Amino acid sequence: MKIVLIGSGNVAIHLGPALIKAGHKIIQLAGRTETSTRKLSIRLNCPYTLDPGSITEKADIYILAIKDEAISGYSRYIPGNKALVLHTSGTVKADVLANCGKMYGVLYPVQTFSRKRKINFKKVPLCLEAGTPDSKKRLDSLARSISNNTQWTSYTERQYIHLAAVFANNFSNHLYLIAEKLLLKKDLSFEILRPLILETALKVQKNRPLQMQTGPARRGDTKTIEMHKALLKTDDNLSNMYTILTQSILDHSGPTM
Amino acid sequence: MKIVLIGSGNVAIHLGPALIKAGHKIIQLAGRTETSTRKLSIRLNCPYTLDPGSITEKADIYILAIKDEAISGYSRYIPGNKALVLHTSGTVKADVLANCGKMYGVLYPVQTFSRKRKINFKKVPLCLEAGTPDSKKRLDSLARSISNNTQWTSYTERQYIHLAAVFANNFSNHLYLIAEKLLLKKDLSFEILRPLILETALKVQKNRPLQMQTGPARRGDTKTIEMHKALLKTDDNLSNMYTILTQSILDHSGPTM
Repeated sequence: MKIVLIGSGNVAIHLGPALIKAGHKIIQLAGRTETSTRKLSIRLNCPYTLDPGSITEKADIYILAIKDEAISGYSRYIPGNKALVLHTSGTVKADVLANCGKMYGVLYPVQTFSRKRKINFKKVPLCLEAGTPDSKKRLDSLARSISNNTQWTSYTERQYIHLAAVFANNFSNHLYLIAEKLLLKKDLSFEILRPLILETALKVQKNRPLQMQTGPARRGDTKTIEMHKALLKTDDNLSNMYTILTQSILDHSGPTM
Repeated sequence: MKIVLIGSGNVAIHLGPALIKAGHKIIQLAGRTETSTRKLSIRLNCPYTLDPGSITEKADIYILAIKDEAISGYSRYIPGNKALVLHTSGTVKADVLANCGKMYGVLYPVQTFSRKRKINFKKVPLCLEAGTPDSKKRLDSLARSISNNTQWTSYTERQYIHLAAVFANNFSNHLYLIAEKLLLKKDLSFEILRPLILETALKVQKNRPLQMQTGPARRGDTKTIEMHKALLKTDDNLSNMYTILTQSILDHSGPTM
């Protein structure tokens, strides 16, 4: 299919090459920032524009891989009303694209994308949403061409997936940062925790988190918990975080369960 | 070296084979539970005992891979006072072993061990502690034979490493559980988050957590944060956890930094 990709950020950088690999043609890339847009257009071997008014009307699909708050406004620039228009957000409703015609929807990739990291897009879970039978058909065909892991989700389901992803990804990463901070207090390197962090994530790839829970709270080891609290007593934020997470483990998977 | 391994739990299950692979001889396994001790002794091809009074005095090294609270009591059964006696705990002081003679210390593996999972022990970071030059020498030689990643740490350093590991491992795993719980509210499968969880851990293998932080708090996206809080409003524990972690991201890596 002929696609116009809008955006030059982390999603576009990974989605663009996946579309080409699947045999689609990106006929135009539209971006806001000259440097990143030109750079990505070279990788995608396609023309680019920085002017939303110059977007071609010749595409079958327009994909808005841009910031949540920019989606609604940008969608007004999409010419014609026969193409399928998609956004990639976990939190924005599909119908902010209703002004683009009957064919609109959502393709939300449940993954964290970084400039530096390669991702096997075939394994990225895609949450799909569309209204009419025609747009569903076209979105389904597009999504299956780039990923082996697609599912239809309602707006509410997508909201919960996004929220769960914040806990599993954003908050976990922040706990890594807290761990690094604690090590730095004693001039210790974060390196010592890297194998543990990787193994923690690998363990839940085939098991449920509840079965994999270990540690003082899981064992009901109050002596160690008190020792940890004493180490954290000068930092209200960390003490608080430690207490809440420890209590939550006790509530969900503690030794009395 | 000739080793007596004490314990048949997750640490012993992984440490035992690593010792044999490194060319050491486990001359006896001592355990509390018949089934797991016999099973591990078959894997390690060594005799076993369930009676602490029957521990042989012919070993160069005794390793107590048992629960924190059992270490001190069990150490009294170790015969002779010429061998090196070690425990593997992240939180127990070395000198609870002082009754075993001059040669004692700590070999604390910074990893999470599960019965089901294979671990490359050569990559497990080992924190070492010992008092006398002789015990340091013997511990160093033992540790380097089973891991490429060893370092000497004081008791305080080990305490901080253990605390940091609780944040990076126990608490992260609990966040995976919370994420699963949120998905279950809408009958969604945890499967959708597994690639994201793995990628989150892979990203910090070569980068620092601060550089890898993404999400609404990192972006200062108050609209999404408010939406998430609304979804959590019926659950005080989760609301509280969300608020504290979000605020901590804002404090450490938010858009104003």
